[in-house]
Amino acid sequence: MSYEVKSLNEECGIFGVWGHPDAARVTYFGLHSLQHRGQEGAGIVSNDAGKLYGYRELGLLSEVFKDDRQLAQLKGNAAIGHVRYATAGNGSVDNIQPFLFKFYDCSVGLAHNGNLTNACSLRTELERDGAIFHSNSDTEILMHLIRRSKKETWLDQLKEALNQVKGGFAYILMREDCMIAALDANGFRPLAIGKMKNGAYVVASETCALEVSGAEFVRDVQPGEIIIINGDGVKIEHFTKDTQHAICSMEYVYFARPDSNIAGVNVHTARKNMGRNLAKEAPVAADMVIGVPNSSLSAASGYAEASGIPYELGLVKNQYVARTFIQPTQELREQGVRMKLSAVRGVVAGKKVIMVDDSIVRGTTSRRIVDLLKEAGAKEVHVRIASPPLKYPCFYGIDIQTRKELIAANHSVEEIRQVIGADSLSYLSEEGLINAIGLDFDAPYGGLCMAYFNGDYPTPLYDYQEKYQASLKEQTSFF
Amino acid sequence: MSYEVKSLNEECGIFGVWGHPDAARVTYFGLHSLQHRGQEGAGIVSNDAGKLYGYRELGLLSEVFKDDRQLAQLKGNAAIGHVRYATAGNGSVDNIQPFLFKFYDCSVGLAHNGNLTNACSLRTELERDGAIFHSNSDTEILMHLIRRSKKETWLDQLKEALNQVKGGFAYILMREDCMIAALDANGFRPLAIGKMKNGAYVVASETCALEVSGAEFVRDVQPGEIIIINGDGVKIEHFTKDTQHAICSMEYVYFARPDSNIAGVNVHTARKNMGRNLAKEAPVAADMVIGVPNSSLSAASGYAEASGIPYELGLVKNQYVARTFIQPTQELREQGVRMKLSAVRGVVAGKKVIMVDDSIVRGTTSRRIVDLLKEAGAKEVHVRIASPPLKYPCFYGIDIQTRKELIAANHSVEEIRQVIGADSLSYLSEEGLINAIGLDFDAPYGGLCMAYFNGDYPTPLYDYQEKYQASLKEQTSFF
Amino acid sequence: MSYEVKSLNEECGIFGVWGHPDAARVTYFGLHSLQHRGQEGAGIVSNDAGKLYGYRELGLLSEVFKDDRQLAQLKGNAAIGHVRYATAGNGSVDNIQPFLFKFYDCSVGLAHNGNLTNACSLRTELERDGAIFHSNSDTEILMHLIRRSKKETWLDQLKEALNQVKGGFAYILMREDCMIAALDANGFRPLAIGKMKNGAYVVASETCALEVSGAEFVRDVQPGEIIIINGDGVKIEHFTKDTQHAICSMEYVYFARPDSNIAGVNVHTARKNMGRNLAKEAPVAADMVIGVPNSSLSAASGYAEASGIPYELGLVKNQYVARTFIQPTQELREQGVRMKLSAVRGVVAGKKVIMVDDSIVRGTTSRRIVDLLKEAGAKEVHVRIASPPLKYPCFYGIDIQTRKELIAANHSVEEIRQVIGADSLSYLSEEGLINAIGLDFDAPYGGLCMAYFNGDYPTPLYDYQEKYQASLKEQTSFF
Amino acid sequence: MSYEVKSLNEECGIFGVWGHPDAARVTYFGLHSLQHRGQEGAGIVSNDAGKLYGYRELGLLSEVFKDDRQLAQLKGNAAIGHVRYATAGNGSVDNIQPFLFKFYDCSVGLAHNGNLTNACSLRTELERDGAIFHSNSDTEILMHLIRRSKKETWLDQLKEALNQVKGGFAYILMREDCMIAALDANGFRPLAIGKMKNGAYVVASETCALEVSGAEFVRDVQPGEIIIINGDGVKIEHFTKDTQHAICSMEYVYFARPDSNIAGVNVHTARKNMGRNLAKEAPVAADMVIGVPNSSLSAASGYAEASGIPYELGLVKNQYVARTFIQPTQELREQGVRMKLSAVRGVVAGKKVIMVDDSIVRGTTSRRIVDLLKEAGAKEVHVRIASPPLKYPCFYGIDIQTRKELIAANHSVEEIRQVIGADSLSYLSEEGLINAIGLDFDAPYGGLCMAYFNGDYPTPLYDYQEKYQASLKEQTSFF
Repeated sequence: MSYEVKSLNEECGIFGVWGHPDAARVTYFGLHSLQHRGQEGAGIVSNDAGKLYGYRELGLLSEVFKDDRQLAQLKGNAAIGHVRYATAGNGSVDNIQPFLFKFYDCSVGLAHNGNLTNACSLRTELERDGAIFHSNSDTEILMHLIRRSKKETWLDQLKEALNQVKGGFAYILMREDCMIAALDANGFRPLAIGKMKNGAYVVASETCALEVSGAEFVRDVQPGEIIIINGDGVKIEHFTKDTQHAICSMEYVYFARPDSNIAGVNVHTARKNMGRNLAKEAPVAADMVIGVPNSSLSAASGYAEASGIPYELGLVKNQYVARTFIQPTQELREQGVRMKLSAVRGVVAGKKVIMVDDSIVRGTTSRRIVDLLKEAGAKEVHVRIASPPLKYPCFYGIDIQTRKELIAANHSVEEIRQVIGADSLSYLSEEGLINAIGLDFDAPYGGLCMAYFNGDYPTPLYDYQEKYQASLKEQTSFF
Repeated sequence: MSYEVKSLNEECGIFGVWGHPDAARVTYFGLHSLQHRGQEGAGIVSNDAGKLYGYRELGLLSEVFKDDRQLAQLKGNAAIGHVRYATAGNGSVDNIQPFLFKFYDCSVGLAHNGNLTNACSLRTELERDGAIFHSNSDTEILMHLIRRSKKETWLDQLKEALNQVKGGFAYILMREDCMIAALDANGFRPLAIGKMKNGAYVVASETCALEVSGAEFVRDVQPGEIIIINGDGVKIEHFTKDTQHAICSMEYVYFARPDSNIAGVNVHTARKNMGRNLAKEAPVAADMVIGVPNSSLSAASGYAEASGIPYELGLVKNQYVARTFIQPTQELREQGVRMKLSAVRGVVAGKKVIMVDDSIVRGTTSRRIVDLLKEAGAKEVHVRIASPPLKYPCFYGIDIQTRKELIAANHSVEEIRQVIGADSLSYLSEEGLINAIGLDFDAPYGGLCMAYFNGDYPTPLYDYQEKYQASLKEQTSFF
Repeated sequence: MSYEVKSLNEECGIFGVWGHPDAARVTYFGLHSLQHRGQEGAGIVSNDAGKLYGYRELGLLSEVFKDDRQLAQLKGNAAIGHVRYATAGNGSVDNIQPFLFKFYDCSVGLAHNGNLTNACSLRTELERDGAIFHSNSDTEILMHLIRRSKKETWLDQLKEALNQVKGGFAYILMREDCMIAALDANGFRPLAIGKMKNGAYVVASETCALEVSGAEFVRDVQPGEIIIINGDGVKIEHFTKDTQHAICSMEYVYFARPDSNIAGVNVHTARKNMGRNLAKEAPVAADMVIGVPNSSLSAASGYAEASGIPYELGLVKNQYVARTFIQPTQELREQGVRMKLSAVRGVVAGKKVIMVDDSIVRGTTSRRIVDLLKEAGAKEVHVRIASPPLKYPCFYGIDIQTRKELIAANHSVEEIRQVIGADSLSYLSEEGLINAIGLDFDAPYGGLCMAYFNGDYPTPLYDYQEKYQASLKEQTSFF
Repeated sequence: MSYEVKSLNEECGIFGVWGHPDAARVTYFGLHSLQHRGQEGAGIVSNDAGKLYGYRELGLLSEVFKDDRQLAQLKGNAAIGHVRYATAGNGSVDNIQPFLFKFYDCSVGLAHNGNLTNACSLRTELERDGAIFHSNSDTEILMHLIRRSKKETWLDQLKEALNQVKGGFAYILMREDCMIAALDANGFRPLAIGKMKNGAYVVASETCALEVSGAEFVRDVQPGEIIIINGDGVKIEHFTKDTQHAICSMEYVYFARPDSNIAGVNVHTARKNMGRNLAKEAPVAADMVIGVPNSSLSAASGYAEASGIPYELGLVKNQYVARTFIQPTQELREQGVRMKLSAVRGVVAGKKVIMVDDSIVRGTTSRRIVDLLKEAGAKEVHVRIASPPLKYPCFYGIDIQTRKELIAANHSVEEIRQVIGADSLSYLSEEGLINAIGLDFDAPYGGLCMAYFNGDYPTPLYDYQEKYQASLKEQTSFF
């Protein structure tokens, strides 16, 4: 997952466990395997027999929980945790989750992955009615709606609130007496349930976090479901039955870890299939196939296998991330780029290379990699992208909200080829992607959200509608 | 380079530049690409028109140079740097290099990669004569020998000192008026010279650090050479002509970055050849070949290519390193292991797997990975090691100094197979390794040091001789 | 101010400036001179032409603003700041002020010194109506009341809110277009207005913060007033006319800095008068008068002057505070005490000593100091306390909320003498204290709150009433 | 001790204990009471049955030993410690003591207070002979001399070395089998021995550190003595009999804590006498006497007592030190000064004030304080200095090494008065000072070093002689 060199950011990863004596520690390990979903901050809320404890901080998980002291204070046999995506600059600890709300009558922890499409209007409405928000995050809204609901039981209050928020969301709540998971009506974001050997239940954004916890996969949370976990086991409720599957296809293409399964489909396998289909759709004569580490290695090996062209390690990624504020200044800028990724001169020199990548956002990184390969002596560089062109923003939880930053929204494939300096460029077709993933829900695209590729949003856009319409008329040059 | 999961440690990485206005920054980038050679600490000594400045600290390079302030103080157009290997516990900043010596008549910076075999006796002798050491490091010895030399010129003093130290060493020294590189008479450790576009000269442990600096490869430093770099260019001297090539074969097998070339041989290519030769020597019917990330991916793809068996991504490595002191306590220990490496259930379940690794030290990690694969449903796991059994300690710069910690020094291949729980186990032969690397110096093994595999040390062992002889009689059980 | 050795804690210090180009920096200096009023955390909210920026953190001011970076981000020509008192343990940054509220229609900064007596019931009521609080602090309540007010103008909303909160409060608010100060109807806590040479207005808990800012004293904020400061100057409004003066007498006795004036009375002078009155009320033949540094030095010199007995430096305070978690374990505990305060053997040995202190809370510190003096050879130690016995809790902003921790609430003066091991013990009378301060407002005790001494609370106790009544019946032994 | 506002720096404080199960902890407490002697860095070397452990770091003691972890590692029942003076800028941990030397045949810890006058020539000589130094500190020299001695026993080696170093020194050494203290032949720096109740022996720069350790004073170390402490008790040796007393008079005037005794004389008492003598020598009609906190409070009270003029608290010192790098920029610079010290307007306004200070170095601080008092309304400010004019540098351990920085070396008293803006200025006479301290050793000035006042150095100046002679001819203007 080459998050360091790409400007695509997942919104978050969430995790929860109920029934384990070392709940905070299990959550720490779970979050560690979800770290690729968010690097800005992390936190855990634990539940010790009804008393909730919380700790959250800016930074990587290993920075937030620097030693055992913080974890030791998060007592209890249940816990939820959160890793938040990295944004430039305005990071404040106020936005780091899980949120821990303490009321006169109860306490609640809340963690959220996704993006609400009516957050802005709900928030204004609530503030007009006297509500005070303490973060910029959409997440707080759910708690205000719950607390203002006039329903009698907390479950009915929760259902009412969940029906008011629109867009993509996977929530985990920690109440004093139970842990709750809920998924939006379209199932945009993944959320899976597992069971540990000691009977503890685990909920996580990706199945890789079940594996690391030693939990066995039980089932995916389904769109519209509320999962209630406590000492009595798992109970399933629904806040709506008006649901469908529109699973984020970019989870398969780029975000999720290759060892995770989403809706029963292994991510590595899906990527390998994308590579295979790409080889069939866009063959080219060359000496070798190389993948851009790490997210494109699966697709590259699939392309190699299907094409019969050898798979080579032509690019090496430095595992140590340098502080970005050590600026390479002027002529050294070029070296800065080379700190992250190096071309293997001994492998690519004098060769025709097929470079497989998962996607292109702005094209800047692709251009740099093509440059690296050519400087290392590659005779030809043929770029093959294992997904269709990214042309439309996402409003359900991925950090692309304008068409301005998407090269494919502003340029033809041939123009992009020129921008990145490749000898040829091809993308996987929409059908090729859908086929590679191979879902077959009774829903458009077999149950995938393909909106970034074709603008076919599965829901109304609410607060974003107007801005989106305007953006369709604008054009930006990337040359 | 799976240093997190293996107990093999390189001793260090060194870098130097002469003639660049941003010398400390160039050194920072160079060291960044050598970070895999040492993670305990880092430092830089710069030279500003004869005035030397130094900064060194425990931690990763990005921790040592946390912001621009430290680099900004390292003024000058020449600099040398060092990354030091990670050892458990007794880390003291006193041992972090480069050392900066300030005398009444001059200042000298000193960085060292390697291990001296007569360090202990030299040190005792020097102390008996009134010398005071300030670190545990071998490195200081050279400076004491230089300062005590009665020769007239500094070059003759240096030559005399270099002839007194035995074992493996690559030194870079910063004097007020020049930068000096020196390599031991057997050339155990790699050391390459490059030239930047602006005419600046660069010296580095690996060629990948030349690439990241935008420098072009000039030549490898040869055994017995002293390279003197200053405004007049590069001058070559020799402290001895009694030399041969005995290049550390483990650099090719495990330590060096795949994009580096050593003695003209690309490391990735050498590893791929090891995999190919291994496929020929130890074939087995299976559904897929997988490599242990990251150091064994080249060998695995070579094995796959030569055998015709598909190469798959069956193991995923977490890019985020968790603090090790967050202890997984009791039953959670298993999860701890899974934080670093995960088996991809969707890929390996129900399959016969060939797992290619570069080497086995204690066997502990191998056993865990075999376990991971079996738990993920692998039907059979056939382990193939892309180098011969590690049976003997290294005294020239790799951190294995007793036979006790080497499983192959104490057990047969069949016994090791049992310990790690594999369905079959084979190692590459010595000939297979030598052939894969393909050096042809006029020296034993084509110019490789093969001592860890066969006990054939290219030099006397001096201070280690006695302990080594004793160790040959001991036996330890790894069951 | 011997806050390190006493368990009396002020609730906070607040500061604000409007009209200075370096507003955050002026606030930093102002808060620095108020640091004795709170050491748990600090923060600043600045106003840059209507845009509000905030930074707050746990720790001393010098730890919170570690370097210029944080201050540099607090742009604008107006700012408010807060230092928060030190409590044991549960420190969370969520409670550190100023709070910065961002609404869809405006932003508001809020800093508070004091304690509300109806906070608990107001909060429960607000939560029942859907409000969500994000801190344990009373301070948030005001903002909820403002936002829920149905009044038309923000000023009327503020007035309505200020009439709902009861107890002791001094608020500074930063709005986009003005800065506001408000004081409770009894004027429990000090709050002064000053003017800088460039015309900027300053508001601060103590006049020493005006001095450090180079501002000239203008007037004290009066009970029931709302002070509105903006480009047009200062405007005075009232939220109530039902006011009186009941200024906290402990500000004069212990909390305030000696260079501050409160209601026109200099604190050092008041303390010196307390010492003088004490000498008259409780004379004793002795060789010297010594004060407990630093808060009792003024009173001691007054006692010495009035009695004609020489004033000596018999106790020395270490200016360096040791980390308290370096525990002196077992027999070393005694040394721990000596780290803060030392008796000067050369001065007190063989002498009859009058030890003047400002007050006694639990008696633990007094006993230790008497011990120190006796171990250093003092023949007799006569303790004189420059205020009446502390018998009742404070609900208006000082951190004594139960009678259990007050030795004088549970024991006679003779019993206290025995507990602390003094040869004699006397307290200043209530009249002696009132006379020493010398206010003459048309109000009980000349305008002082004397409740801690006599239980005569100037207001109803609201939420505390019940607990207080119960506490009157309990008795604890300090022997 | 107003080290924050004065540019006079002591060189260090040292402490040692032998025979206490919590030796490192006892040392921590001892160093804490010596913190005023050095704030740049601190360290401890402990001795656990012959095994030596060390820890040292830049910063205040409470920053160096941030938590119990570092202390816990310093095992053993003997320890020595050091606090080092604060210098601007070039602080390196390499200079922080105690030094811990590990040889093939033994280990030694070494702590030093003082300054050698032949350090430079000894160092050059040693380097010419091959020695390598690792710090800028004089301290290392002793160890080189010891190790190069050809004497047979370590004691004779030590004696030989001690006779080679010249100037002012108090050393504490930790050997595996004993602790050693040694004092130069003139006894410039104080060093006292104490005994704890459990029989443990303590050595410290000041007796206040004995008090804090609960140790009883035994005797001062005498010039030329070597004190050897081990399980057998205390043994006294001499490295020279050619000794005299020349105790640093500035220890009494400024450096030492008022609760310490030096050569049997209490520091507070000496200072009070200085004030008394000053009142007699330089009387003036005024309304009050005020002292500059904290070092001048004793002298001020002596002046008040002898003159019959009331002693008042006219200046208040802020106990919280602000980070100096929060620069008050331009017009705020004035506020910056006020952060440290405030004049009490209510006390001094309209009054004639006698301001007593211990000494004047550059005059900058004095001018600022006079300004503060005048701005606060003082009608007249008469400055009285409780020691003679500082005209000559110190080469024995105080950080004044040039006459350029001493206003009294360059200006008459009347000129100084004009520079600092006082209405009158007088200094104490040399006789007044000598009489106030009242030593009566058979030596010049009763056993005091008065060189800073009269240039009468008790020893040859060695390496400093030439520079000193030259400086006598230079003149600098402070106007």
